Amino acid sequence: MSVEQPRYPTSIGTSDPDTITLLGQNLAEDLMGRISFGELAFQLTAGRRPTPGQLRVFDTVLVALADHGFTPTAIASRLTLLSAPESIQGAMAAGLLGGGSRFLGVTEDTAKFLADTLAGHDTPDTDEGWDVLAREAIRQQRAREQLVPGLGHPVHKQQDPRTPVLIRIARESGTHGPHLALFEAIGRVAPDELGRALPLNGAGVCGAALADLGLPIELLRGYALLARAAGLLGHLAEEMRTPIAHDIYRAVDRNADYADPPTDGPTPLTE
Amino acid sequence: MSVEQPRYPTSIGTSDPDTITLLGQNLAEDLMGRISFGELAFQLTAGRRPTPGQLRVFDTVLVALADHGFTPTAIASRLTLLSAPESIQGAMAAGLLGGGSRFLGVTEDTAKFLADTLAGHDTPDTDEGWDVLAREAIRQQRAREQLVPGLGHPVHKQQDPRTPVLIRIARESGTHGPHLALFEAIGRVAPDELGRALPLNGAGVCGAALADLGLPIELLRGYALLARAAGLLGHLAEEMRTPIAHDIYRAVDRNADYADPPTDGPTPLTE
Amino acid sequence: MSVEQPRYPTSIGTSDPDTITLLGQNLAEDLMGRISFGELAFQLTAGRRPTPGQLRVFDTVLVALADHGFTPTAIASRLTLLSAPESIQGAMAAGLLGGGSRFLGVTEDTAKFLADTLAGHDTPDTDEGWDVLAREAIRQQRAREQLVPGLGHPVHKQQDPRTPVLIRIARESGTHGPHLALFEAIGRVAPDELGRALPLNGAGVCGAALADLGLPIELLRGYALLARAAGLLGHLAEEMRTPIAHDIYRAVDRNADYADPPTDGPTPLTE
Amino acid sequence: MSVEQPRYPTSIGTSDPDTITLLGQNLAEDLMGRISFGELAFQLTAGRRPTPGQLRVFDTVLVALADHGFTPTAIASRLTLLSAPESIQGAMAAGLLGGGSRFLGVTEDTAKFLADTLAGHDTPDTDEGWDVLAREAIRQQRAREQLVPGLGHPVHKQQDPRTPVLIRIARESGTHGPHLALFEAIGRVAPDELGRALPLNGAGVCGAALADLGLPIELLRGYALLARAAGLLGHLAEEMRTPIAHDIYRAVDRNADYADPPTDGPTPLTE
Repeated sequence: MSVEQPRYPTSIGTSDPDTITLLGQNLAEDLMGRISFGELAFQLTAGRRPTPGQLRVFDTVLVALADHGFTPTAIASRLTLLSAPESIQGAMAAGLLGGGSRFLGVTEDTAKFLADTLAGHDTPDTDEGWDVLAREAIRQQRAREQLVPGLGHPVHKQQDPRTPVLIRIARESGTHGPHLALFEAIGRVAPDELGRALPLNGAGVCGAALADLGLPIELLRGYALLARAAGLLGHLAEEMRTPIAHDIYRAVDRNADYADPPTDGPTPLTE
Repeated sequence: MSVEQPRYPTSIGTSDPDTITLLGQNLAEDLMGRISFGELAFQLTAGRRPTPGQLRVFDTVLVALADHGFTPTAIASRLTLLSAPESIQGAMAAGLLGGGSRFLGVTEDTAKFLADTLAGHDTPDTDEGWDVLAREAIRQQRAREQLVPGLGHPVHKQQDPRTPVLIRIARESGTHGPHLALFEAIGRVAPDELGRALPLNGAGVCGAALADLGLPIELLRGYALLARAAGLLGHLAEEMRTPIAHDIYRAVDRNADYADPPTDGPTPLTE
Repeated sequence: MSVEQPRYPTSIGTSDPDTITLLGQNLAEDLMGRISFGELAFQLTAGRRPTPGQLRVFDTVLVALADHGFTPTAIASRLTLLSAPESIQGAMAAGLLGGGSRFLGVTEDTAKFLADTLAGHDTPDTDEGWDVLAREAIRQQRAREQLVPGLGHPVHKQQDPRTPVLIRIARESGTHGPHLALFEAIGRVAPDELGRALPLNGAGVCGAALADLGLPIELLRGYALLARAAGLLGHLAEEMRTPIAHDIYRAVDRNADYADPPTDGPTPLTE
Repeated sequence: MSVEQPRYPTSIGTSDPDTITLLGQNLAEDLMGRISFGELAFQLTAGRRPTPGQLRVFDTVLVALADHGFTPTAIASRLTLLSAPESIQGAMAAGLLGGGSRFLGVTEDTAKFLADTLAGHDTPDTDEGWDVLAREAIRQQRAREQLVPGLGHPVHKQQDPRTPVLIRIARESGTHGPHLALFEAIGRVAPDELGRALPLNGAGVCGAALADLGLPIELLRGYALLARAAGLLGHLAEEMRTPIAHDIYRAVDRNADYADPPTDGPTPLTE
C-alpha cells in the first residue's frame, strides 16, 4: 500500500540521546536554571521570549488569578481527592473542569470584547477619544441586550484591589496598551452610561493586560487555568494536611431533603 | 523511508458507506431495536452475548450501583455544571473522576479478593467446604493486617437491602457461582472470625455477581462507573431543574475560617 | 450565630438503615431485577417511567450512539489508560471530555433546531404542511449563514443506515412525533432547497427521536455521553486485551517533524 | 434543629470588599508584581516562602518537567481540543489525566524510594557511607523483585542531559541534600550491583531535588502535573495555529483492521 505516512510538524521540542531541545533551545544548557517557570509558560504559548517587562506583567496576572478561596472548582477538587486519593491528577483535572464560562470566563470575555471593539477602529490618542470609543462599545452591548464583560464584582463593590495594582505594573513595565486603555475608559464612562458605578473586575483587567502582551485571545482561558492549577495544588496540599472535604460531603448529605418525584413529571426546566 | 505503517486491530466496529458493523453484527439490522443498552454494554466489554439470565443479573447490578444520593461525586458533578454550564461532558467527567478507591472501590476490591482466594483452591462442594475456605481467606487477610473487602456498610449496619435480592436473582438466573458462594460463606463465618456481625455490602455482592458472570476483574470498576454515569446524569438533570450547587458552594464559602498560615511551616502531613 | 442551615431538596434517592429509596421506589424490592439499566437511566433523567414503546426507542438510540470506532474520544481514552493504567475512571473521563460540539454535537444541535422551529408554529397535519415548515426552517438557517444540523454524513453519503431503522421503530413504538416528522420533511425538501441530496444523519435522527420522547433538549448531549460511556468501556476492555495505544503514541512521536520556532513570532492563529 | 454548622478552616485565602488576603499576605500589595508565579506555587503548597536558592531549584524542576514532545498526554489533549474546541479546560484536563503512574510516576516514585531508604538510617557523612546505603537500598529492591525507580531512560541511554545540570544547580543553590546524595550514590554503585550502567533519569533527579527542598512526597506528582499543565497549554496553542490532531485521528482510523470478534469469547486478558 502506498499511502504516505502523515508527518506531524511541531516547534515545541524534540530529543535525541544527548540533547533535549525545547523551543529551539537546549533545555539543559539554555533553560534549566536560567529561566523561570512563568517565562517558560510564556514562551511555550506565545512562541517568543518575553521582555522583562512582559514577564513581570505575565507573572502578576498568574499570581492574581491563582486562587479565590473555596470556589466550586476548589471544592470539587478536594471532594475528588477524598474519593480517589490515589489519583491526584484526577483531583486536579476535576477542579480544572469547573474552569468554564461562569467563574473563569471573565478574563477571556473581557479581552474578546475589548479586542472586537478595537478591531475596525483607529486607536484613539486622547482620553476623550478613548471615552468616545468606550461609550460606543457600551451602547452596542446594550443594544444587543448583553452585559459589558469585566464590570462589577460580587464582593469588591467599590474597587477590586487587583485593578489599580495591575494597571500600574503594566504602565511601569511598558506593556500598557489599547486593551487596558479602552478598559479604563469603559470604567470612566460606565457610571454615566449605565447609571451605576461598577468597578473594573480584576480578572477582567487581567484579560486586558494579557491581550496587551499580544497573547492570543483564544488562549486566555488557558492562562487562567494554568494559574488555577497552582491554586488547586495548594488546596490539595491543604486537604492532605487538614482535610475538610469529608465534612463538606456529610454536610450536604445530612441536609438533604428527599421527596418522592411528582407522578406527573418533573418541574419544568428553567430555560 | 520504508518504515511500515502500524496497523490497529479491533473487533469493536467498522463502517462503510452502507453498513455499520458492531461486534460482528449489523448495527442497524441486528442490534437497533433488538437489544437493550445494557445488553450492548455487556457485549462491548465481555466480547460475547449474554444469556437472558446473565443479562438480568447484569442489569440488576447496574441498577443497584447507579446512584447513592449526594455522594462526593454527585456533588462535584453538580458544582462543575454550575461553573461550566456549557459543558455537560465536563460535569459528567468531573463526577466520574471521584470514582476511585474510596467510594467506588468495594465492587472490584471484593471481586479481586474472592478471585484471588478461589485461585489455587479446588471449588468446595458443601457449605462446610465453603466455610473452611472463607475462614482461611479471612485469616490470611488479618495476617496481612488488612480489612476483608465487602464487609460492613456505614448505613446498613444490620443488612444491606441489596444483598439478599441480588443473591436471589443470581440463583434464579442460574449465574450464582463460586464468587457469590465464597462471599456468602464469608458472611456466615465473619461474626465468629472477627468478633462482630458485619453485613455483606451490596456493592461487594455486585462485584461477586459480576465475577460469576465471567466478566474481567480489571474492568469491574468500569461497570460501576458506567452505572454511576446514569446516576450522574440524573443529578445533572435535577440540577438543571432545581439547582442546589450554588447553595452548596456558598455554604462552604460562608463557613470558611481563614487563619494566616503558621510562620514555621504547615501542620505535618497525616500519613 | 443564627444563620439557617441550607437544605438541599432532591427527588433522586435516600437511604435509611433498612431501605434504599430511589425515585420514590424501593430499590431492592421494586427496581432490582425488575427494570433494565436503560429504563433506570430514563427514569433518573426524565422524572417518569417510560412506556414500553418509549423504552424501546430509548434503548435503540443509546445502542445507535454507543460507538463509532476509533474516534478521537476512543483514542484519547486508550492513550490515558496506557499512561495511567491504575485509573480507569481517568481513562473514561478523558474519553468523555471529547464529547463536545464537533463530534457529539449533532444529536442535540438537531433536536434544538427542530424544537426551535416547532415553537411558535401550529403542528402541521399533512405532509405538505410539514414540507412548508421544513422549507421555512432551511431558508431561515441559510439566511443566518448557518448549516442545517443533522444533514449529511462524512461516510454514509447516500443514506445513513441507522436512519430508516430508527424512524420505523419510533413509528412501531407510537413515539413518532413532530420532531421526527419535521426532520423527515427536511430530508424530503433539502435536495430542492440546497441543491444537493444530503442524507439524514443517524445521530441527528437520534436527537429528534429523543425529543419526541419528551426528554429535555438541554440533556440530550448527556444521553449521547451515557451511550458513549459504554462504547469507551468497550475500547478500554479491548485495550487491556490487545493494546494499540502505545503504537498510536509511537507512530505520532516517530513521525514528528521538529523545526525551531520562527524568531519573529508564531504563525498567526486561524480565526 | 440544633446541629452545629460545620466550619472549614483554611490558610490559603480570604476576601473582604477591600482586600484579598492570600497566605497571610495582601495579594494586591505584597504579592502582585513582587513574586513570580513559580514562587506563589511554592508558597501555596509548601506553606512557606522559598529562599532564593530554593526557588531557583524549584523553577528548574518545573522547567525540566514541563514538556516531553508528543507524549500520550499531549496527544490526548490535542485530540480533545479537536473534538470540543469550545472547552479548553476539557482539553487540559484530558491531558492531565494521563499524568499517572506510567509516564509521570518516576518523579514521585524515586523520591519515595529515596525517602523510605533514608528513614531509619543515620545520614552518612562520606561518599563511602552513601555508597553503602545505596547498595543496601538496591539489594532490598531486588529482593522484593522490584526495579529501582529513577534508573534508566528509553532515549538517553548514556546520560540524561538534565541530570548533571540539576545536580549542579542544587549544589550552587545550597539545596543539595540527602535525597540527591543518595540518588547520586545509587548511580555510582548501580553498574556493579545491577551489572549494567543505567543513567540517573532526569525526572527522577527532579523528585530527589524536590524532596531536598522539603516538599511533601505526597504532592510531588502534583508539581509534575503543574509543570505539564504549561506544556499542555503550549501544545494547545500550537494545535490552534498548526493543527495535527485531525491527522492523528484519521491515521488511526484509516489503519484500523477490523475483524469480527471470536465466537468463543475474547482473547484472555494479559495480567
